[in-house]
Amino acid sequence: MLTLSIIKQMEQMAKETNDVVSLSQGVPFFPSDSKIRTQTIIDLMQNHVDKYTDPQGIKELRNLISLQLKRDGISYDDEEIIITAGAMEGLTAILLGLFNPNDEIIIPSPSYVSFHTAVRLTHLKPISIALNEDENWRLHTTSLKKIISKNTKAIILCNPNNPTGSVYDEKTLIEICEIALENNLYLILDEVYEKIVYGKPIYKPYRNNKYKKKIIRIASFSKTFSLTGWRVGYILSDTSTIKHILPAHDTIMNCAPVISQYAALHALKNEDRIVNEHQSYYLDELSHVARSLKSLSQYLDFQYPRGTYYFFPLIKGCVDSTALAMNILKKVKLSVVPGIAFGDGGEGHIRICFGRSTKDIKEGMKRLSIYFNEYYEQ
Amino acid sequence: MLTLSIIKQMEQMAKETNDVVSLSQGVPFFPSDSKIRTQTIIDLMQNHVDKYTDPQGIKELRNLISLQLKRDGISYDDEEIIITAGAMEGLTAILLGLFNPNDEIIIPSPSYVSFHTAVRLTHLKPISIALNEDENWRLHTTSLKKIISKNTKAIILCNPNNPTGSVYDEKTLIEICEIALENNLYLILDEVYEKIVYGKPIYKPYRNNKYKKKIIRIASFSKTFSLTGWRVGYILSDTSTIKHILPAHDTIMNCAPVISQYAALHALKNEDRIVNEHQSYYLDELSHVARSLKSLSQYLDFQYPRGTYYFFPLIKGCVDSTALAMNILKKVKLSVVPGIAFGDGGEGHIRICFGRSTKDIKEGMKRLSIYFNEYYEQ
Repeated sequence: MLTLSIIKQMEQMAKETNDVVSLSQGVPFFPSDSKIRTQTIIDLMQNHVDKYTDPQGIKELRNLISLQLKRDGISYDDEEIIITAGAMEGLTAILLGLFNPNDEIIIPSPSYVSFHTAVRLTHLKPISIALNEDENWRLHTTSLKKIISKNTKAIILCNPNNPTGSVYDEKTLIEICEIALENNLYLILDEVYEKIVYGKPIYKPYRNNKYKKKIIRIASFSKTFSLTGWRVGYILSDTSTIKHILPAHDTIMNCAPVISQYAALHALKNEDRIVNEHQSYYLDELSHVARSLKSLSQYLDFQYPRGTYYFFPLIKGCVDSTALAMNILKKVKLSVVPGIAFGDGGEGHIRICFGRSTKDIKEGMKRLSIYFNEYYEQ
Repeated sequence: MLTLSIIKQMEQMAKETNDVVSLSQGVPFFPSDSKIRTQTIIDLMQNHVDKYTDPQGIKELRNLISLQLKRDGISYDDEEIIITAGAMEGLTAILLGLFNPNDEIIIPSPSYVSFHTAVRLTHLKPISIALNEDENWRLHTTSLKKIISKNTKAIILCNPNNPTGSVYDEKTLIEICEIALENNLYLILDEVYEKIVYGKPIYKPYRNNKYKKKIIRIASFSKTFSLTGWRVGYILSDTSTIKHILPAHDTIMNCAPVISQYAALHALKNEDRIVNEHQSYYLDELSHVARSLKSLSQYLDFQYPRGTYYFFPLIKGCVDSTALAMNILKKVKLSVVPGIAFGDGGEGHIRICFGRSTKDIKEGMKRLSIYFNEYYEQ
């Protein structure tokens, strides 16, 4: 039987403690953009949002997504897009629409905690593959090949990866696509952090038509536009795959919440401006947190994130990250996520989110420093 | 592999035909209430809707639901409520959270088409039980007992029932609850049309504490408040059951769309007024449609709906309701739903929705009359 994720449990414990600073849940602190709000209110007043839409989502939004991808040389038409009620509803529809009980799904460790839960929830079998911390959390394709069985149906990658902040390189991604082709597997690519990157953009293997048929891309408006509460994202794939996912999405949701579909449309129309604003904020906070972490180098090692708004330091001498996170909460009222929440590969780490307000980040890092200097025993 | 429902297919075909009148999809034609809109816009501007909420939903809404139930002598506290992204997301979370592949779920025929799809989608086994048209679509509990096996885990009832417009009587519901208790089954009660009834309210068996533990009630704001596009509803059950459904809901949705949770809150605050307004409209349209159907009595038999906004006439001599519905669309550009869409028990019928505008209903019934008088061959 499933239980609520450790992240949710930490959040709930944090809520029950006074004066807690939370750097745990991965929610950007920005309010939604005022242009998105005004335009969405107009849609509401013009009676656009009360009725179900096409299960696949409003055509205007799918057309705009398709158009913006073409600008980047990527070709998906509006029939190859499903607007979903967030990334996870999209993943649930994929898992229920395409696979059968006991099919095996490969998930890197550490990676986003809900992949594992969603796979188990839909009666599929999660198979872990460890990422290599010493090589920027690289995935070794030789190890991948070894764990593929006749029951393996898909690999789920989060790129940039939550919680490590690492990015899969082009060579690895192409190798994975080749393996997917050879073994008739789907590559499910969760790219919800694609617009939160520091340095060059992530490599997108579906750019190559050869791989497009085996790739299902999951995207979201939550992180990019600070619209987590609106529950809206989308899936991209070849029509031959989309036609199996659509009935699942239709059964679960009928259609994504319509007011959120319009909010997403207005978000996309203002994408460049909003992304730039957030990006420069994240870069500042990244360097603040890095500075604090450096001053704690006797207690921890860390890598600079290439994407996402997470640091995932390795705590020296830590063998139980849950106990550590609980103790940090207890001693200095700071909430962070224990690394074990992201799979065995995350043990010994904590995840620190810098998508929060400058004030919270400053205070949070001060408390973390107090914790290590005054309470931590290696 | 699943495909889109016949209702959706009919809707799509209808969209591709010029000047079609649609009495098919079950969407109330009213726009959302202006008070709901204004109050929800205020929540948006006050930064209430951008971030995830508690997976169970905002406390204010759960408290109000609990309070209004207490007014009716029904006791569920806020921990026994999950706000969902509509009734079907709720059902998906129930099916995934509580059952295992090949568990059997009993579904009356005819009944809401998506029950069957959701059960198959989640790898469970739908078992049909025929309703008896001659006795106001009664469910015979003797027949129910006969189809229960050791794999049976639940019964799903829609009350009032879509598409028949019939209501399960108190005696039958109590008998079903007793059978559920004896056989350790859940009774999943979909009551999304509970506020669209003509005559006395439906009987609510969870009023009796003895049955509460085995009942999961699904409710929605879609039909009652004309908020179908907002995707918001809720589940009620005993905490011992809720705790298994919540992780499933959390994995699929994180939380229901937050702006819709606030819309639901404002809807509930204005419930009596809105329900009365809609009710008197539906009553008028019910009598208009009944008058038209009476004039066609040489072609069809019908029963008066006790709830919902559907008529479900039996067409004399019709053995293929899909062909009939297609032909009605082709000849007179009227879209209705073939009865077979609701299970074998619906064959020979068509479903006519009178939740639409007076103009559409008038024109639709005129076209139906033309169809039968000029084109129909028994």
